[in-house]
Amino acid sequence: MVKEARLMALDVGPEARLDPDTEAYFAKCQEKLGFIPNVLKAYAFDNTKLKAFIAMADDLMLGDSGLSKLEREMIAVAVSCANHCHYCLTAHGAAVRQRAADPEMGELIAQNYRAAALPPRQKAMLDFAVRLTEAPDKIEEMDREALRRAGFKDRDIWDIAAVTAFYNMSNRLAAAADMKPNREYHFMVREMVREEEGASAAGAPVRASTNRRGEAPQAGRRRRRAV
Amino acid sequence: MVKEARLMALDVGPEARLDPDTEAYFAKCQEKLGFIPNVLKAYAFDNTKLKAFIAMADDLMLGDSGLSKLEREMIAVAVSCANHCHYCLTAHGAAVRQRAADPEMGELIAQNYRAAALPPRQKAMLDFAVRLTEAPDKIEEMDREALRRAGFKDRDIWDIAAVTAFYNMSNRLAAAADMKPNREYHFMVREMVREEEGASAAGAPVRASTNRRGEAPQAGRRRRRAV
Amino acid sequence: MVKEARLMALDVGPEARLDPDTEAYFAKCQEKLGFIPNVLKAYAFDNTKLKAFIAMADDLMLGDSGLSKLEREMIAVAVSCANHCHYCLTAHGAAVRQRAADPEMGELIAQNYRAAALPPRQKAMLDFAVRLTEAPDKIEEMDREALRRAGFKDRDIWDIAAVTAFYNMSNRLAAAADMKPNREYHFMVREMVREEEGASAAGAPVRASTNRRGEAPQAGRRRRRAV
Amino acid sequence: MVKEARLMALDVGPEARLDPDTEAYFAKCQEKLGFIPNVLKAYAFDNTKLKAFIAMADDLMLGDSGLSKLEREMIAVAVSCANHCHYCLTAHGAAVRQRAADPEMGELIAQNYRAAALPPRQKAMLDFAVRLTEAPDKIEEMDREALRRAGFKDRDIWDIAAVTAFYNMSNRLAAAADMKPNREYHFMVREMVREEEGASAAGAPVRASTNRRGEAPQAGRRRRRAV
Amino acid sequence: MVKEARLMALDVGPEARLDPDTEAYFAKCQEKLGFIPNVLKAYAFDNTKLKAFIAMADDLMLGDSGLSKLEREMIAVAVSCANHCHYCLTAHGAAVRQRAADPEMGELIAQNYRAAALPPRQKAMLDFAVRLTEAPDKIEEMDREALRRAGFKDRDIWDIAAVTAFYNMSNRLAAAADMKPNREYHFMVREMVREEEGASAAGAPVRASTNRRGEAPQAGRRRRRAV
Amino acid sequence: MVKEARLMALDVGPEARLDPDTEAYFAKCQEKLGFIPNVLKAYAFDNTKLKAFIAMADDLMLGDSGLSKLEREMIAVAVSCANHCHYCLTAHGAAVRQRAADPEMGELIAQNYRAAALPPRQKAMLDFAVRLTEAPDKIEEMDREALRRAGFKDRDIWDIAAVTAFYNMSNRLAAAADMKPNREYHFMVREMVREEEGASAAGAPVRASTNRRGEAPQAGRRRRRAV
Repeated sequence: MVKEARLMALDVGPEARLDPDTEAYFAKCQEKLGFIPNVLKAYAFDNTKLKAFIAMADDLMLGDSGLSKLEREMIAVAVSCANHCHYCLTAHGAAVRQRAADPEMGELIAQNYRAAALPPRQKAMLDFAVRLTEAPDKIEEMDREALRRAGFKDRDIWDIAAVTAFYNMSNRLAAAADMKPNREYHFMVREMVREEEGASAAGAPVRASTNRRGEAPQAGRRRRRAV
Repeated sequence: MVKEARLMALDVGPEARLDPDTEAYFAKCQEKLGFIPNVLKAYAFDNTKLKAFIAMADDLMLGDSGLSKLEREMIAVAVSCANHCHYCLTAHGAAVRQRAADPEMGELIAQNYRAAALPPRQKAMLDFAVRLTEAPDKIEEMDREALRRAGFKDRDIWDIAAVTAFYNMSNRLAAAADMKPNREYHFMVREMVREEEGASAAGAPVRASTNRRGEAPQAGRRRRRAV
Repeated sequence: MVKEARLMALDVGPEARLDPDTEAYFAKCQEKLGFIPNVLKAYAFDNTKLKAFIAMADDLMLGDSGLSKLEREMIAVAVSCANHCHYCLTAHGAAVRQRAADPEMGELIAQNYRAAALPPRQKAMLDFAVRLTEAPDKIEEMDREALRRAGFKDRDIWDIAAVTAFYNMSNRLAAAADMKPNREYHFMVREMVREEEGASAAGAPVRASTNRRGEAPQAGRRRRRAV
Repeated sequence: MVKEARLMALDVGPEARLDPDTEAYFAKCQEKLGFIPNVLKAYAFDNTKLKAFIAMADDLMLGDSGLSKLEREMIAVAVSCANHCHYCLTAHGAAVRQRAADPEMGELIAQNYRAAALPPRQKAMLDFAVRLTEAPDKIEEMDREALRRAGFKDRDIWDIAAVTAFYNMSNRLAAAADMKPNREYHFMVREMVREEEGASAAGAPVRASTNRRGEAPQAGRRRRRAV
Repeated sequence: MVKEARLMALDVGPEARLDPDTEAYFAKCQEKLGFIPNVLKAYAFDNTKLKAFIAMADDLMLGDSGLSKLEREMIAVAVSCANHCHYCLTAHGAAVRQRAADPEMGELIAQNYRAAALPPRQKAMLDFAVRLTEAPDKIEEMDREALRRAGFKDRDIWDIAAVTAFYNMSNRLAAAADMKPNREYHFMVREMVREEEGASAAGAPVRASTNRRGEAPQAGRRRRRAV
Repeated sequence: MVKEARLMALDVGPEARLDPDTEAYFAKCQEKLGFIPNVLKAYAFDNTKLKAFIAMADDLMLGDSGLSKLEREMIAVAVSCANHCHYCLTAHGAAVRQRAADPEMGELIAQNYRAAALPPRQKAMLDFAVRLTEAPDKIEEMDREALRRAGFKDRDIWDIAAVTAFYNMSNRLAAAADMKPNREYHFMVREMVREEEGASAAGAPVRASTNRRGEAPQAGRRRRRAV
């Protein structure tokens, strides 16, 4: 069996005795994903920190929102691309591939969303996310206006901002700790989607086969951890 | 009476009915600070988001750590300076002035920590925080090594990274929402500290009068909200 | 009494014997401000340099211009914010607070003028100043046109450019020499302006209470040194 | 069958009648790779341009050199990561995965080579390549010296520079034309390498199982087009 | 006689025995220019590399194109200015001076093309070239559209991109190798153009005396090597 | 006769009636240089501004200093290169060519001083000047220390900083006003220096023929205006 590489470059001590809640959460990860995401193991030296991180991540990525879950993953990946974050590109790259049911889509956002020929709504969303990542001090009303023109409500703009902000946090923690993603992510949803079985039946490349929110129809079927 | 200016540029709807816990938290803020920090009011449209934010912020800024509370505020301010964040410079600038019992110290970190003639420990800490803010993708082992040489344990490095990362998140949410700080922050701890009453009795400028961790002796006396 | 910290990191020798003119100038500073601005003391090792600096600074900041004195201080502070200049943020931050009779205004410009909800004239002015600071090689006719559209004459544009340019000089000299501002600046004009006594009597926040040029009515009463 | 998406955003006219040499080259691509790399089809409107491009690319990537073919692909990918080039990350990402016989290695270099725990030789090589990419005007003798200390001869440094320079060219042409990579690249060498069959038999993760030049033993077996 | 300074900082070994073709090419350079461009001597350690470089450079700079030869040299110089490349600014600065028959024009583009008051076609061309140089990942359809609006066909856009890309390659190779230009370039076409003999007979400064493509009438008379 | 192009893009009104002092200064310029530098004509709408500018420029560039006049011009040109300032590169490029009695030297500093193989003293000086230009907020004691190790006294460091700062001012004023240099500068000191008549008699290229301060022996002979 392949030995797990070290989790990160910081030795922060042993795993804490997990709360029952958290233990159950870890068990569910193991059951659904087949592994515990390494970011959770990295946080597991301290129950309070771990729970705060899970609470925030799960609300942002899986809670109620005007953004689809795929859109939130797209933001995660576009931000992580701007910040060149190995951990998050790997973990959330897999999530975009899965939620879009489109392996090429994930790669595209991870490499440069500007090459992805996105619909205007998602282009505006990622333009804002990357600008907020690169030059937060230069955001002005006209940036918010561009989102409103693209159809977002103020409540959605909060969510775009909150997800962008969250991955600017996570990217930096992962970089500072040199956190390593679970190897499984690399191999998830890599097979080419054939049209008869894929999201598209129209002869167009699969990446165009998402619904209005850019989410593949079946993506919502499986519940999935946010991290 | 001066009317409160609008809280932020996003209209995310009315305040949610707060949980009893959160209501109690708000009451304590009002009692101790004399006001509810605007970031909490901005988050108050949604109990889940508000609680996750409070849980993370309070743990990071007030929880157990090898970093003093002042040091954590110094990171908050140095990061917010790099990101030119009006909200966080105002709120955490006040916190540094208060925790250091030194109004000039807060200004210095908010303007440019490199001019502050900090002891090597804190200089290394802020060098790392700002580098992680500006170029997270370029952090390498030698950056972590510089912190270890300055006396930090790996557990402390996690905390430096986590606080830096958190304010990279908060700065971006505040910028995206154009969040306005409570006006009271501007006016807190502005009076010059005289030596006989200040932290220093040694004829040196007050800003040198902090203990090994750069925290003024009396700073720990009053419990204070993190946000 | 608090001992004055060292003036700067460079030992350029003793103060020159001042010219009578300059001696009179220093005396007037002492009388009006209560101190000699440290930048003047830093220059005082050489009469020629000191006089050239004073001549240029006083003409730019106090001479005849289509820009109000407050506006010129706003440029000084916005430029110094972009350059993170401790000396100039401290000295000219105080000047903006004083000229606007608004302590929060000074903070706002020193932190990020984009959060200050400025009238279009001043927004355009500071946009130009910061762009000229950050990317002088990219200024083009359309940047000058934006100022003309905001109501500035070409002669005003010269002044905006000249003040911006001057603080790009001063910021760099202060940074290279690690110049320390007089401590008094930190404490000037920090008290909250109450409406009945402040510039505003209209219930709006004080920062909106400036005249067409964004200058508080009483600001012109006291003559003040430019540096 | 999935219809091929458009090749690029520029309509430069129909494919030229290819030279016999080039026709043979295309046939060999089809036979060995199963497709003609899109960059060649993009250039195929003009025989002279196409041939010059092939001549330079093949010499650089497949010709005699002190750098292994894998190392040259690593440079291609690290440069393309700095430039966020969708085309080259896709095509050369596949090449690194293949030459290293390690799917995770390709991802790592494409995301951030600093997270790849490379041996010092390759770390120095990519540090130089990325610095030359980001700030060519700041390269100095000490940068060349760092490569010499890492064991490179001057002739090798030429090759590092030439490959870095070439992908700074290709990245820009691909970006300007919005060139689309062949979809097949996405799906090449994605399966996890098991240890018994992989490059490593030592229990260490596969990515450590390369020879002195960081090239998997079997990688040289198949001749492969450079582009 | 002045001894030739060393060619570059890398010792890549002796000149290869040149192919007859290349020997003839070198002889023609010597005859027409009076010297062999140093970049060719730098490449001359390897016939294959040398020939690939010449083939690409000559096609791009002298081949059929919707861009005039002067325009292509202007791109070379504007890119080299952005990259601060001593070799290319010297060699191609001379070429612009010569092709425009205007010594000031070459200087202008080498210093900052934005100060050159170029006609809209060439302004748009250099705006694109410099943007593609500085931020290739941010090129989008609207950048191509700006070129089309300025009158360029897609085939011309390919050429603008290809020349820009090529000098981003050459600049980096020259920087990495610290390549020295032939001293003769410094002194070519430096004399002021008088109106009676110059390109202009209209009393306007010479730099306005170019034809629709910005090329001086006589510039095409002398055939010239591209490098 | 060639008509003078417009001086700058701003119409700031007619030339003021010059002071007798200034009139004499202009007359001397005309006599020695054969023209009035355009920056002076640009400032001539206002006697006070003009005199302050001349006083500062002449003191910095021609006054007593531990830096040679050539060294001060080198700083002017290296700073103007970083800022891509057409006016200052033209005017001070000519000055470096003249003071070094070496036309290639001027070009080299104007293009990229790192390619100039400068002696360590001048390399350190320009490294500091460019760093202070590009990132004034990051100057620290170790930057000053590097200058001291290169042999500079603190008084010299002041001068390096002051000249650097001054051209950061001038560059920005010239850029904002789109100031045009006198055409004569382009053509000054362009002829190749032959060794028998040049500064060097040792067979080395002329650019190595400067004295300890990097100033050609005869450079001091002619008095010259600073601007």
